[in-house]
Amino acid sequence: MQQLQSLQDQLAVVLEALELPSEPKSLYEPISYTLANGGKRMRPLLVLMGCKVFNEDVSQAIHPALGIEVFHNFTLLHDDIMDNAPIRRGKPAVHTKWDSNIAILSGDAMMILAYQELCKTDASALPLVLDVFNKTALEVCEGQQLDMDFETAENVSISDYLNMIRLKTAVVLGGGLKVGAIIGKAQSEQADLLYDFGLNTGIAFQLQDDILDVYGESHKVGKQKGGDILSAKKTFLLIKAMELANGEQAASLKGWLQSGSEMEKVQAVTEIYDQIGIRELAEARMWDFYDKGIASLNQLEGNTEWIELLRVFSRQLMHRES
Amino acid sequence: MQQLQSLQDQLAVVLEALELPSEPKSLYEPISYTLANGGKRMRPLLVLMGCKVFNEDVSQAIHPALGIEVFHNFTLLHDDIMDNAPIRRGKPAVHTKWDSNIAILSGDAMMILAYQELCKTDASALPLVLDVFNKTALEVCEGQQLDMDFETAENVSISDYLNMIRLKTAVVLGGGLKVGAIIGKAQSEQADLLYDFGLNTGIAFQLQDDILDVYGESHKVGKQKGGDILSAKKTFLLIKAMELANGEQAASLKGWLQSGSEMEKVQAVTEIYDQIGIRELAEARMWDFYDKGIASLNQLEGNTEWIELLRVFSRQLMHRES
Repeated sequence: MQQLQSLQDQLAVVLEALELPSEPKSLYEPISYTLANGGKRMRPLLVLMGCKVFNEDVSQAIHPALGIEVFHNFTLLHDDIMDNAPIRRGKPAVHTKWDSNIAILSGDAMMILAYQELCKTDASALPLVLDVFNKTALEVCEGQQLDMDFETAENVSISDYLNMIRLKTAVVLGGGLKVGAIIGKAQSEQADLLYDFGLNTGIAFQLQDDILDVYGESHKVGKQKGGDILSAKKTFLLIKAMELANGEQAASLKGWLQSGSEMEKVQAVTEIYDQIGIRELAEARMWDFYDKGIASLNQLEGNTEWIELLRVFSRQLMHRES
Repeated sequence: MQQLQSLQDQLAVVLEALELPSEPKSLYEPISYTLANGGKRMRPLLVLMGCKVFNEDVSQAIHPALGIEVFHNFTLLHDDIMDNAPIRRGKPAVHTKWDSNIAILSGDAMMILAYQELCKTDASALPLVLDVFNKTALEVCEGQQLDMDFETAENVSISDYLNMIRLKTAVVLGGGLKVGAIIGKAQSEQADLLYDFGLNTGIAFQLQDDILDVYGESHKVGKQKGGDILSAKKTFLLIKAMELANGEQAASLKGWLQSGSEMEKVQAVTEIYDQIGIRELAEARMWDFYDKGIASLNQLEGNTEWIELLRVFSRQLMHRES
């Protein structure tokens, strides 16, 4: 899609032009390293698309979009410390390449840099944009905390889990779209519709991630197949399986989850999932959220070309195999 | 000073009324714990005093002042992780009472809460207030990074050191006063004068801290006397002593600094300081900065009562023994 490529190009220009101080090196080098390490740049693209629905001119949205991207990368940087994850996008995470202290502090500085970019919003839209952003950013922290809490929690229900992924993953998609809409001078209820579109499709994307971890083609997923099973992560699939398993299945599941981390474990747990029909249940729930998001999109009154592009973009994300 | 007490009371009311969500507990309890743990609340007081110089009504400055206090407490929380400091204001630091992950994330959330309070600034002043705050916050990170870098650096000059304490400690005093002045509708050059007052007296306060660590009365200082010497911290006193020491003194200093951490070490290093006359040199430099700050204050054109209160307040801080 040529129109999206053009927006990505504009984002690349401002990202390239983002001038970081040169000193102290140990503070700013990890930030340059993080921001140069790519990623899909989906979140800033959504900010610009959200703006485009209501305003052809996105020039006022570019820096706030960059702010959302810098914020997202800050959360990954700090999450990697907390999750003790050594690799990010195929390269050593900042806390591995440098150390935890440097990762904490350069992450802090990135959050401030994110605000600096967001503050380049036109003064008339600034209070509203920051309201949305502050709320969203705090929710992302809540989501990460719940994710950590769930590791040791005895009982995590499907509704707990959906709430966690809503906060950790989905609100920033909704929030980004809404920020774009506000800068594009959308009416408040229109901006909220875009938010709901981002929020619900965002939950669908995360459910798809859970499904692909088990049922994706691993070379396309780009990470170890069954990683969630190996680490006994309480995903939608596992929580639902524990909910529906009969006595024998539940005992078997528990036994496997407490065992080591071999491919045998992935196979055995997947077989139980298949007996219960977890894939179909997860996919049904995923499409429910997706359809709910699309229903909000359908109510939008804005530039039809860009509404259509949002629909196509989200559909493509739902048919990804990685 | 009754006027200052009245401002402190107003601050206490909004701090008390700060409503944090109740869930997730593991995110918000450490924040309540941190904010309830007192401190002198000097920074938010400076915001209000900065406003008072130009405007009798400080109601618009209260929430931004609270934002500065929340930000300051966030930096302490993250610094304690990085410095591996187990105690803060006589109580277990958050990373000790909970754990590092919780301290990282609740610190992140505190920074967002700080922005939320700052964003309650009247829309007309908001862009300027956030400009000052973003710049200040980033400088505080730079100061902390330099402080960490200096631990292992071979050569730290007096000018490096003064730059570090300017960033780590002084800019937030200047920045807080300037935020208050902007909200009080001060002219730009007037706000800058207040900033310079805060910046230079802030450097003086930190130099005084360095001096009190060695020459203060320990029961008043409230912490172990000579703590900086025991940890061989490169303070103004140590850097200056190394600069001026003759061959024998330098060798002796180095020897003692590499030794264990007994009171003997504090005594020996202090004796070398005394031979060189470090206390007088440090005090002279401290008063230079203090006088420079007061010179800016003297140029201010605002409410003379509040200018006088700022003078008295800063003078009292300079005659403290703890």
